[in-house]
Amino acid sequence: MKLIIERKIVMSNIRRTWLPFLNVDVPEDLKTPADVAAFELEAGCAALGIDRPELKPDDALGEGYEISDHAITGGKTGILYGAYAFLTAKAAGEALPQGLRKPYYPLRMINCWDNADGSIERGYSGRSLWFEGGRLDWDPLRVRQLARMLGSAGLNVLCVNNVNVKGEAELLIEDYLPRLARLADEFRPFGVRLMVSIDFSRPMAHGVGTADPLDEGVQRWWAERAEAVYAAVPDLAGFLVKADSEHRPGPFTYGRTHAEGANMLARAVAPFGGVVVWRAFVYNCMQDWRDTSTDRPKAAYDTYAPLDGQFDDNVILQVKYGPFDFQVREPVSPTLYAMKRTHVAMEVQLAQEYTGHQIDIFAMNPLWRELTEQLPPEGLCAVAAVSNLGRDDNYTGHPFAAANLYGFGLYAWDPWVEPAEALRRWARLTYRLPADKEDALTELLLNSRGVYEQYTAPLGLCWMVRPHDHYGPSPSGYEYDLWGTYHRADRDAVGIDRTASGTGYAEQYPAEIRDRYSNLDTCPDNLKLFFHRLRYDYVMADGRTLIQRIYDDHFEGCAAAEAMGETLNALELPEPDNAEAAGRMEGQIKNAREWRDVVNTFFHRLSGVDDAKGRKIYD
Amino acid sequence: MKLIIERKIVMSNIRRTWLPFLNVDVPEDLKTPADVAAFELEAGCAALGIDRPELKPDDALGEGYEISDHAITGGKTGILYGAYAFLTAKAAGEALPQGLRKPYYPLRMINCWDNADGSIERGYSGRSLWFEGGRLDWDPLRVRQLARMLGSAGLNVLCVNNVNVKGEAELLIEDYLPRLARLADEFRPFGVRLMVSIDFSRPMAHGVGTADPLDEGVQRWWAERAEAVYAAVPDLAGFLVKADSEHRPGPFTYGRTHAEGANMLARAVAPFGGVVVWRAFVYNCMQDWRDTSTDRPKAAYDTYAPLDGQFDDNVILQVKYGPFDFQVREPVSPTLYAMKRTHVAMEVQLAQEYTGHQIDIFAMNPLWRELTEQLPPEGLCAVAAVSNLGRDDNYTGHPFAAANLYGFGLYAWDPWVEPAEALRRWARLTYRLPADKEDALTELLLNSRGVYEQYTAPLGLCWMVRPHDHYGPSPSGYEYDLWGTYHRADRDAVGIDRTASGTGYAEQYPAEIRDRYSNLDTCPDNLKLFFHRLRYDYVMADGRTLIQRIYDDHFEGCAAAEAMGETLNALELPEPDNAEAAGRMEGQIKNAREWRDVVNTFFHRLSGVDDAKGRKIYD
Repeated sequence: MKLIIERKIVMSNIRRTWLPFLNVDVPEDLKTPADVAAFELEAGCAALGIDRPELKPDDALGEGYEISDHAITGGKTGILYGAYAFLTAKAAGEALPQGLRKPYYPLRMINCWDNADGSIERGYSGRSLWFEGGRLDWDPLRVRQLARMLGSAGLNVLCVNNVNVKGEAELLIEDYLPRLARLADEFRPFGVRLMVSIDFSRPMAHGVGTADPLDEGVQRWWAERAEAVYAAVPDLAGFLVKADSEHRPGPFTYGRTHAEGANMLARAVAPFGGVVVWRAFVYNCMQDWRDTSTDRPKAAYDTYAPLDGQFDDNVILQVKYGPFDFQVREPVSPTLYAMKRTHVAMEVQLAQEYTGHQIDIFAMNPLWRELTEQLPPEGLCAVAAVSNLGRDDNYTGHPFAAANLYGFGLYAWDPWVEPAEALRRWARLTYRLPADKEDALTELLLNSRGVYEQYTAPLGLCWMVRPHDHYGPSPSGYEYDLWGTYHRADRDAVGIDRTASGTGYAEQYPAEIRDRYSNLDTCPDNLKLFFHRLRYDYVMADGRTLIQRIYDDHFEGCAAAEAMGETLNALELPEPDNAEAAGRMEGQIKNAREWRDVVNTFFHRLSGVDDAKGRKIYD
Repeated sequence: MKLIIERKIVMSNIRRTWLPFLNVDVPEDLKTPADVAAFELEAGCAALGIDRPELKPDDALGEGYEISDHAITGGKTGILYGAYAFLTAKAAGEALPQGLRKPYYPLRMINCWDNADGSIERGYSGRSLWFEGGRLDWDPLRVRQLARMLGSAGLNVLCVNNVNVKGEAELLIEDYLPRLARLADEFRPFGVRLMVSIDFSRPMAHGVGTADPLDEGVQRWWAERAEAVYAAVPDLAGFLVKADSEHRPGPFTYGRTHAEGANMLARAVAPFGGVVVWRAFVYNCMQDWRDTSTDRPKAAYDTYAPLDGQFDDNVILQVKYGPFDFQVREPVSPTLYAMKRTHVAMEVQLAQEYTGHQIDIFAMNPLWRELTEQLPPEGLCAVAAVSNLGRDDNYTGHPFAAANLYGFGLYAWDPWVEPAEALRRWARLTYRLPADKEDALTELLLNSRGVYEQYTAPLGLCWMVRPHDHYGPSPSGYEYDLWGTYHRADRDAVGIDRTASGTGYAEQYPAEIRDRYSNLDTCPDNLKLFFHRLRYDYVMADGRTLIQRIYDDHFEGCAAAEAMGETLNALELPEPDNAEAAGRMEGQIKNAREWRDVVNTFFHRLSGVDDAKGRKIYD
């Protein structure tokens, strides 16, 4: 096969993120992962100046592959993953992985929160790549490059529309079907299947008169819709559903459980091999702040634990990693331990909603690896990440945010992947820096979460963010609001007692975990104020008072952010990444100083305690 | 003249607010105030079953009039004001005003903040009555009824577009001219002249290359535009300008003063008898909260006092009544005392941006009367009010908010009008209740500002409102923001020292006023925390501590709001007003409880001091 020579070679100037060496665009007429594998291998080996190994398809391997310098053996999509594994290892100058490689999570999903109007909820990288003005349309070159990125990262499901299904996007299972089918064609050759978010109340718009999951008319409507959708997109992964959550419609309206709601949809897609991914993000978002008995982190467990065992086999309950909502640090959601007879996906967020808006650097592999260490040993069946993608030239706003997309792929294949290894791999593929600079960049990324955490929320005290946009400090921004997110700081103490003597949240965990968090001595510092209410004069293990620790962390975290700026400067990255990263770093340092000063002032005003080290705290 | 009999009588079901007895629509072909006066008199006297007095035009009287049971003598618009004065006095069963009546303020202006897309900035009564989707269009019946309302209230200028000139509205001096001329035709017969807000940088959009007021090209461009505008609307009142304020363009860009900017525009409209109303709402809206030397209330005086005497004769400097921005209570702006050689308009706000969004009841005549008592004796030349009008059936959202529009007219004619008299007049015209209920409604309105103030900001402590929408409490919502609005509450004290020992704001006043505010003993309680920083254990004149006073006021203010609800119920107003007011009252009571609890909890957490009366303060 002389794939390249027989074609018109296209080397467009679209950004290639971690695949700069794959500088020839993938032609549009390739239909299967095997086609793409062959093309990528030929073009990639030519670009790298290396010999091309032989491709040996073996359908029995599915997503698995085995590679050597001479041959790539792999299943239907495994052959493509093998090709990318070969090429990236060669491009990085690393040894080839040994033996049979298979992904840990069968479903490795990206959830896009793209709205039909082209906006993206919590999107920090520009507008949608496929929606605009109520239309489903796209630049094929850019979307194919994105599909290549997803394929090379080993991801296999892309949900194209916001879980908060708004506007015309609700028509994805109706009028949009021909366009959806075309979009699926763009991703299919890269081993990526589409998924769509659906609106649970949709039958109401079609004269069914109810959306009750036990109503036969409703069941029939969904079955017919599923048939039509799968006729258009036979390999659709399934439906993603946000129900009874933040004002979305759901089964509660009809006095039905979420198992009844999810199973009804699951039975509609089951004949076509589809799944229903049902989000467990259910809580009272109209809480009265005066109510101290309701504790939002308890909500998902209270809702779902009693339903364990009641979900159909093709339902996947998608649970956010923490009991709140993608905070910088949360304990692992107790719901993840409770659903032993339910298929469960863990949801993480690449979109940096609470973690810096892709302005501040926040590499996530360290966070995810910590989750792995805490997850139940029997494991989960899937992992999903809210997308950080958009129409920006570099796809992710901050060029380093691409490390999270790539790193998520590595994590989905191997939850134990070393964060430093994942980040170095991305940095090496992307930039090919001299060794000392590669070390520095890897280190910067590896520490970025800790730095961000330190200047924002170092002790597990969440939600001191600006309401609505969730960037920057607002210590009391959510304190008297409806969202169930309170710290109740007063002149003496701060935090919520979530142990048995308080709201009882900790009781939702298995005993060993419950005890560790409930005991002040064993509860880790970085979750102390998540689980306990502490006086400012509480003495931490290292002898510092709580208030001094708050001051120290915010001063040190900010100083660390400033130091990151110097490190970044010294990297001399290639343009335009250098300018993009430098511009955002100015924003990050400003943000870090704001967090430092606002939080310190807030607690100084409350406590009246001066900084023991005499640093500047504003009045 | 048998005006009615010769015409098709139209009695549409549009809402007639305080003119229910004028139940025949004004025909569209009446051209002058004299025409309207004749029509209204005939139809009104017929409806009231009274004899019709003779109309005696006397152009020398201008806007003045003199009325008796037999004759109405008046100038060009005075004849119409006389007719309305006659009819409303008769409808209210009151004695006719004696002697020659003339308005105190020559310019009595309504500023609409309507955007071309149909939205209204700070609008709480529905969408714009004349803009929608970038078009200037309207329901003639509804707009003519509005013009009648304005005429009957004695108001004579209507600025039709937002001072923040956005979107197509910037074309009001260009493509829109034919439509603008038509709109002027609707209002002219009622003695109301239009005004338009303009965008200071507009010449830039026409290739002039600069908006520098000293540039001859710029001057020529504005002169030409003025000529075109006045050709279309010969009686246009002039231009309204928000410059160098909250990110609006202005003369500062070119190193020019606001006198230079305003005079340039004034010279463009002078040949046509127009004025330039130049808003003095200039301050640093990008302040760093850490900066304690900058004090926003000082900004307008600092900007404009040095320019006194430099403005052309047809420039009117429009100054908000307080130095901040339409808070529940502010001291009178020192800029109003400082501009002795400048034409000055005072700006108030009918739109209840900070005063309850036309959900909570807030009758404004008491506030305005207090202003009168404090204004410099030499007076001002004009008064302007930000509109509370919109497309809602009743024009003002809350039916009682119409009292503010009508009351503003009475105030503009006589700044010393007794608030109780103004409010009773509106209530009597609108509802014709039995005497005890009319008393109760008048009393409810008269006290409404005091009640709202008591449960929101009883001691002159402003800005504890929810950011952006400005409804509901958020004690620290603006505390670390860019807007220069801080209270700096800590565990010991609250408020800003604005005396000579603090920011020096009080020094901007004439000595007598400065001394009164600066001295804690003479500074009124309701401004104590505006001018002073006080400890929670500060003892007020009545022996209560500051913290106890805060608690008492918020408890009592909320109880008073609850009592208002009962009073309102007992009024048994006609529908739909009764249902509209009752629905909003539920919202007001909820809001009052929120203010009570949030503010009390906020200060309890800070101070640690319990309520002396043992009432419930939440943790």
